[in-house]
Amino acid sequence: MTIYKAPVADTLFVLNDVLGYERYSNLPGFSDASADLLDAILGEAAKLAENVIHPLNQVGDREGCIRHEDGSVTTPKGFKEAYDQYREGGWMSLAIPAEFGGQGLPYTVHTAVAEYMSSANMALMMYPGLTQGAIAAIIEHGSDEQKQTYVPKMAEGVWTGTMNLTEPHCGTDLGLLRTKAVPNGDGSYKISGQKIFISAGEHDMSENIIHLVLARIEGAPEGTKGISLFIVPKFKLDANGNPGERNSVSCGSIEEKMGIHGNATCVMNYDEAEGYLLGAENGGLKAMFVMMNEARLGVGLQGLSIGEIAYQNAVAYAKERLQGRSISGVKAPEQKADPIIVHPDIRRNLMNMRAFNEAGRALILWTALKSDVAHRSGDEADRQAAEDHLGLMTPIIKGVLTDKGFEHAVMAQQVFGGHGYIEEHGMSQFVRDARIAMIYEGANGIQALDLVGRKLAMNGGRAVQSFFKEVGEFCEQYRSDEKMSPYTKGLKKGLNDLQAATMWLMQNAMQKPDNAGAAATDYLHLFGLVALGYMWARMVKAAQDKIAEGAGSAIHEHKLVTGKYFMDRIMPETAAHLAGLSSGCDSMMALPEDAF
Amino acid sequence: MTIYKAPVADTLFVLNDVLGYERYSNLPGFSDASADLLDAILGEAAKLAENVIHPLNQVGDREGCIRHEDGSVTTPKGFKEAYDQYREGGWMSLAIPAEFGGQGLPYTVHTAVAEYMSSANMALMMYPGLTQGAIAAIIEHGSDEQKQTYVPKMAEGVWTGTMNLTEPHCGTDLGLLRTKAVPNGDGSYKISGQKIFISAGEHDMSENIIHLVLARIEGAPEGTKGISLFIVPKFKLDANGNPGERNSVSCGSIEEKMGIHGNATCVMNYDEAEGYLLGAENGGLKAMFVMMNEARLGVGLQGLSIGEIAYQNAVAYAKERLQGRSISGVKAPEQKADPIIVHPDIRRNLMNMRAFNEAGRALILWTALKSDVAHRSGDEADRQAAEDHLGLMTPIIKGVLTDKGFEHAVMAQQVFGGHGYIEEHGMSQFVRDARIAMIYEGANGIQALDLVGRKLAMNGGRAVQSFFKEVGEFCEQYRSDEKMSPYTKGLKKGLNDLQAATMWLMQNAMQKPDNAGAAATDYLHLFGLVALGYMWARMVKAAQDKIAEGAGSAIHEHKLVTGKYFMDRIMPETAAHLAGLSSGCDSMMALPEDAF
Repeated sequence: MTIYKAPVADTLFVLNDVLGYERYSNLPGFSDASADLLDAILGEAAKLAENVIHPLNQVGDREGCIRHEDGSVTTPKGFKEAYDQYREGGWMSLAIPAEFGGQGLPYTVHTAVAEYMSSANMALMMYPGLTQGAIAAIIEHGSDEQKQTYVPKMAEGVWTGTMNLTEPHCGTDLGLLRTKAVPNGDGSYKISGQKIFISAGEHDMSENIIHLVLARIEGAPEGTKGISLFIVPKFKLDANGNPGERNSVSCGSIEEKMGIHGNATCVMNYDEAEGYLLGAENGGLKAMFVMMNEARLGVGLQGLSIGEIAYQNAVAYAKERLQGRSISGVKAPEQKADPIIVHPDIRRNLMNMRAFNEAGRALILWTALKSDVAHRSGDEADRQAAEDHLGLMTPIIKGVLTDKGFEHAVMAQQVFGGHGYIEEHGMSQFVRDARIAMIYEGANGIQALDLVGRKLAMNGGRAVQSFFKEVGEFCEQYRSDEKMSPYTKGLKKGLNDLQAATMWLMQNAMQKPDNAGAAATDYLHLFGLVALGYMWARMVKAAQDKIAEGAGSAIHEHKLVTGKYFMDRIMPETAAHLAGLSSGCDSMMALPEDAF
Repeated sequence: MTIYKAPVADTLFVLNDVLGYERYSNLPGFSDASADLLDAILGEAAKLAENVIHPLNQVGDREGCIRHEDGSVTTPKGFKEAYDQYREGGWMSLAIPAEFGGQGLPYTVHTAVAEYMSSANMALMMYPGLTQGAIAAIIEHGSDEQKQTYVPKMAEGVWTGTMNLTEPHCGTDLGLLRTKAVPNGDGSYKISGQKIFISAGEHDMSENIIHLVLARIEGAPEGTKGISLFIVPKFKLDANGNPGERNSVSCGSIEEKMGIHGNATCVMNYDEAEGYLLGAENGGLKAMFVMMNEARLGVGLQGLSIGEIAYQNAVAYAKERLQGRSISGVKAPEQKADPIIVHPDIRRNLMNMRAFNEAGRALILWTALKSDVAHRSGDEADRQAAEDHLGLMTPIIKGVLTDKGFEHAVMAQQVFGGHGYIEEHGMSQFVRDARIAMIYEGANGIQALDLVGRKLAMNGGRAVQSFFKEVGEFCEQYRSDEKMSPYTKGLKKGLNDLQAATMWLMQNAMQKPDNAGAAATDYLHLFGLVALGYMWARMVKAAQDKIAEGAGSAIHEHKLVTGKYFMDRIMPETAAHLAGLSSGCDSMMALPEDAF
């Protein structure tokens, strides 16, 4: 049986003390979740995650989802009841605008809560998670009628949503997609084709499922320019807007996969199903990206979530398992052996996970705040700066935090030794579940290309320059500060490496585009290290301020140590990334295809 | 369905052209597997691996092993027949001395063959693999009678062997073990206790199972000094040495685990089972280490094996899957998209795997040759140098190649995108199977401690100094060689980092032992990179010589590129390891236990 405790105190430290959450109180919705209410909201979320959602995590893995002969799908025992509690508690609609029945609270608060829920049960939380993306796309691109028809029910959670992009022969390259849409003449379309890997494609948890489906309208241009997005409800709506006649979309099978067994990953067959254009004709890719960007941040969050729960379980085991004696002297003389947490190599695993988790949480919450500014601020310059940040950080959060989340699930499993390999202990599930986050919503290689190929040069490099400036100024400000310089020194070195890598790309990627592709993943991780290192420097500064004010507590003292660990042990990797990427694409691409 | 093709040409290149296999022809057994016979032996092994062993790999994962109510265990369909072919072909006894019915061929040849077999089906090959370790322990520590009684049948493969070390509360720390042995007065003992994680503990593939069991003789000293090793056969032998009465050892259950489902991982219950002391009373740990060292090399080999087959499948998919267009210009205009192997980030994954696999193969074969020298040479100085090498490289091969084997299985899975997450494609199995190799036979953290805490200082650092000298001289020799310097430059930089790390340990680990533990894993990987980098430099030199002689072919040209990739992209990681480890244990150990 695994354990889980939501890290509420850490979330509050980051929001209140590091990011200055109070400063945003003039933004719409923030007054309803003021700093003093935050505590209560997060506390309630923690209870639900710990007591209701988490106990179903291993059950879900063991039972999986079952497709019946009629195409219906049963989710694991207890999932529906837990989901009902989740949506009845209003957690689904936390950040949905009030005009659609939501609570209109900050996306930041939703994000903090979503971390706990995904830690507790990633597979279960994918049902509402995908619905969030679908809601975002409908709000952004739907007609008023579509918004009023679908969003309130989805916000309430009685209907859920899906994203239907992938086809058997086309994943990353959506230009190849074949699902077709034929106009019925009444504004609706007949959608036909097969979609695969559809998370939450069919299940028994909601009264209707609103599929958002990419398809090609008859006669549309080839490639990505001819793709449109459609709303295809599982049940067509009757005159009162209630689920009525069954639409001709069905689950053909459930994939047998490595993990997230509690989520139904479906092959979906569309057989002249009735669909309604969402957004502009042939504007599907743009509309889809609204979902996608939301989903990418959500997936990055999953990486953190699994990293966190895996860490917590490794800690518990390391304190409990007695094996060997501390090399620096017996620590538990009353027992036959010391708990393994005394051994440096066990500590190394724990500190690695911890140092990434705490910085990852800060990076995600910082970015969530920027998202709120981008969507809610009245100041155009603020909005633009926030959107720049959001665009830049999305691939980094998705790519780096999911790579690390998986790596840390593996690390946590390693702490358990042989017991980690046995399914009963739940560590294997964390590894198997975390693995998908590196793949879906754009495999991490694609995130790296998005960063290097799009985000870097966008608006003349405005976003990246602004980030460099902010981090550089922070380093400069504390360069001679005795307490801060042990942290800013490592950060500055990392920033220098990142700037050198950026310069290298500018000088070498245009003339030889393969240099960009060859550098992408190293650049992504180099960027991630600097972003996380910056979070550490800011957390340490906030902790030092608290301590100096006489308001310091254990959490603040621990930040100083963990931040130092990050600078000592993790930050030096930036140099290897820089050296690797600046070797260029030659040795990577030189072998002829038939050499493989 | 996965694919597999044994890399015979690469094995031959390494043995013949890089390691000078011919030079060892004066050692016993080598004349029976002379360079011109090698080809034929490896070719036969390849056929068996590809056509018989490999087709059962996914079957084994899906079916797993079944324990019946009477405690008997059925292996997956086809496993027994394939194993019969393996042992009837004499593959089991390849390197077993002729006096015990073996063929007495070089261990090097056995190792080359074992790579193919483990690639083809890791779970199946664990049955004979563990038998090899048990044979080694009996040959080294058994009485003449024990050797004659057990080894020939085990060499023939009609009996198999196991290692019984772990108990529920004791894995790494064997001093805690409780299984007890009570003398019967006739030289035999009654063994009682429970062992867990016993690979191949019970199955239907052999006529008898010879368990080697660590236990504590009544009244023996506490801790590791009071442990003895026992032979406990599943069936006691009758007067003719044939399996007779059932011994009271039984499989209590089969573990439900993440991977290697085809191998029965058993809880074994000993209930006054009849056992016979193997080696000296209270000398169990020493005897066990014979098995363990053999097993550790075997597990390192498994890391390579899975890395290789995962790579091969990723290559096949990357050539076949059409998605997107090459950024440097369309490569397959006749098709709707290019194969994904044209994309640099896909290449990066493939080249990473390839660069490690080829160097890993060289490192293992080099070490296997040293093992042959250590066991067969008539020259004492040669034997000692070879044993030094063997001791030094065992934790490196085990730790680094299994960490990397797993990492590469994950990389290969990533190349498949979403399809990699679906069990059908077999990539998930590689990941799940490879995971155990980082854990068993001493978790990789223990390998790192073995290297830093024992191997480094052994005999005044003789082994490590000899390695540094050899690599340093190689670098020096080719420093001004225009063709070689692009390779030796990176290697030399890595060697410098390794020597600096070694010096740091010498200066800091004695006064503060936690500095050794804190440095161990970084040091292990730093050492691994230099050892693999040295293999690359030697392979490149051999390839260049062939090309210069006019005897060069594609394989030689490709070595130059892949070796360069290793130096460009992988070797620079040594600096991060050095920086990390030389930060010492302070930030790693400073948090109080209750901070976790």
